[in-house]
Amino acid sequence: MKKIDWIAVDWGTSHLRIWGMNDAMNDSCVTIAEKFSTQGMKNLEPNQFETILLEHIGEWLDGCDSDSAMPVIACGMAGARQGWVEAPYDKVPCLPAQNTITISSNDARIKMHVIAGLCQDNPPDVMRGEETMILGYISQQQEKKHLLCLPGTHSKWAVIDNGEVSSFQTSMSGELFALLSTQSVLRHNLGQWDDDCFIKSISATLANPEKTNIRLFNIRALNLLYNDNHGIAYLSGAIIGLELAGMKPLWQENAVTIIGDNTLAGYYKMALESQNVSVQMIDGSMLVRAGLHQIYRKLYQNA
Amino acid sequence: MKKIDWIAVDWGTSHLRIWGMNDAMNDSCVTIAEKFSTQGMKNLEPNQFETILLEHIGEWLDGCDSDSAMPVIACGMAGARQGWVEAPYDKVPCLPAQNTITISSNDARIKMHVIAGLCQDNPPDVMRGEETMILGYISQQQEKKHLLCLPGTHSKWAVIDNGEVSSFQTSMSGELFALLSTQSVLRHNLGQWDDDCFIKSISATLANPEKTNIRLFNIRALNLLYNDNHGIAYLSGAIIGLELAGMKPLWQENAVTIIGDNTLAGYYKMALESQNVSVQMIDGSMLVRAGLHQIYRKLYQNA
Repeated sequence: MKKIDWIAVDWGTSHLRIWGMNDAMNDSCVTIAEKFSTQGMKNLEPNQFETILLEHIGEWLDGCDSDSAMPVIACGMAGARQGWVEAPYDKVPCLPAQNTITISSNDARIKMHVIAGLCQDNPPDVMRGEETMILGYISQQQEKKHLLCLPGTHSKWAVIDNGEVSSFQTSMSGELFALLSTQSVLRHNLGQWDDDCFIKSISATLANPEKTNIRLFNIRALNLLYNDNHGIAYLSGAIIGLELAGMKPLWQENAVTIIGDNTLAGYYKMALESQNVSVQMIDGSMLVRAGLHQIYRKLYQNA
Repeated sequence: MKKIDWIAVDWGTSHLRIWGMNDAMNDSCVTIAEKFSTQGMKNLEPNQFETILLEHIGEWLDGCDSDSAMPVIACGMAGARQGWVEAPYDKVPCLPAQNTITISSNDARIKMHVIAGLCQDNPPDVMRGEETMILGYISQQQEKKHLLCLPGTHSKWAVIDNGEVSSFQTSMSGELFALLSTQSVLRHNLGQWDDDCFIKSISATLANPEKTNIRLFNIRALNLLYNDNHGIAYLSGAIIGLELAGMKPLWQENAVTIIGDNTLAGYYKMALESQNVSVQMIDGSMLVRAGLHQIYRKLYQNA
């Protein structure tokens, strides 16, 4: 088995993904081992990050010491104000993920780097983690102009122009869906998924986005009055629909690349295609490693 | 001291209000005693309602028995599917709160009535509790045409035409605000209230309601990038603004009567007046008793 030369970390709000990487000394990026957990930033105190990281990667650190420390490169909410150590933001327009901070770890076997996020002055916006996927994406493209959609807790839409991020916008769609589906009165009416109900809700929300919060309560009434059993599809359609309504100036005349390969990304694809938008999907976990690999090469191979 | 002849109850999602009432044998409505608690429907099982009610009103039941039981008339979520016993809905257009069900209580000292809610076919909608306030309001008015706004967990807007409720709509504004301000990432950035920031957020949301979920995340970024400290005013403005955007066909050419006398009702007044709408405010707790008194007279005085 090839050895682990460096460690890639994507530490999000609600997840932690860690990959043991082999240093192929070229453009390719070889994953030796991976660990996933739900130990995201939102439930952690700053002093817990190093302990949790070491619980996962300890077995990969045989032979490491202060003279030959293992490079660990992390993106995401590890660098947030509520994270491990606050990392700065780079301001758009720029090539993303170009700056890092080094964290002094208590354990001398690792050398810890955290990637800077992106910020935008107007409208004010920030991202942490997605900039690394975007770097990974840009590094693999010949074309210099793209519209990216990264669905999630805080969905990001990024405009790539001339090989840089020129602007981006965030919609709190995933967080809103989680709160409404588990803690609001709508949790009683979720029922079962249905593609047609989802698309119907997307279209109604795009036609009248100003009625979104009224339509949310219509879902409750539909169940109480008619025993309608597709609340979850209507709710998802209302929330993704409101995001698409806000982002319409971006997608209405452009193809969209969705970064993500899960069920949620599939819903975004279905929603956009129902509006006759051309869509392609790309695996986000490959892109985040590709982006982290770019930074590894820059820090350790002067690439 | 006058004696308590009947008991008025407003049992909402998150509150319980009880009044001991004197039977003045005429149109007026005299409150002898009152009790407020936060024992709303949302945290109760059906078998808890009677016990909780009796804990509050037991001291008012001296001398009551199965031959001279105390009338208790309740509106609100006591009649919801997740409430004490499910009461029916009357369908608009209609005079509200005209039907009741009688609940067989375990304690023979009380005779328990729950008022029917209102429902609407299209768009599907329901209310429980507000219909009784609206009945109280209608009973005190000479004019037959009104636009009512009842801010709350689930804000209601009701059109009164020819002395009946002709249609109504609900916005989940209070519930959404509670979830976002206590459990979303925005809870870190609430800061302090500011009227100007609130009105600015109302105007921006009315101008571009489709960007509401994007603007929510702008609040987070404003704090992270600029240490802006008025998140709560921006958040409230975005949520009330989205409600007003959805209800604009109702208020843009009509005066609005806000039922409510608390801080929240004041924010709605401020928001509507910023859009040059004529607004009056009326105390909701007076109106709910006036509505319950109408039903008491109908049930016990053949009024």
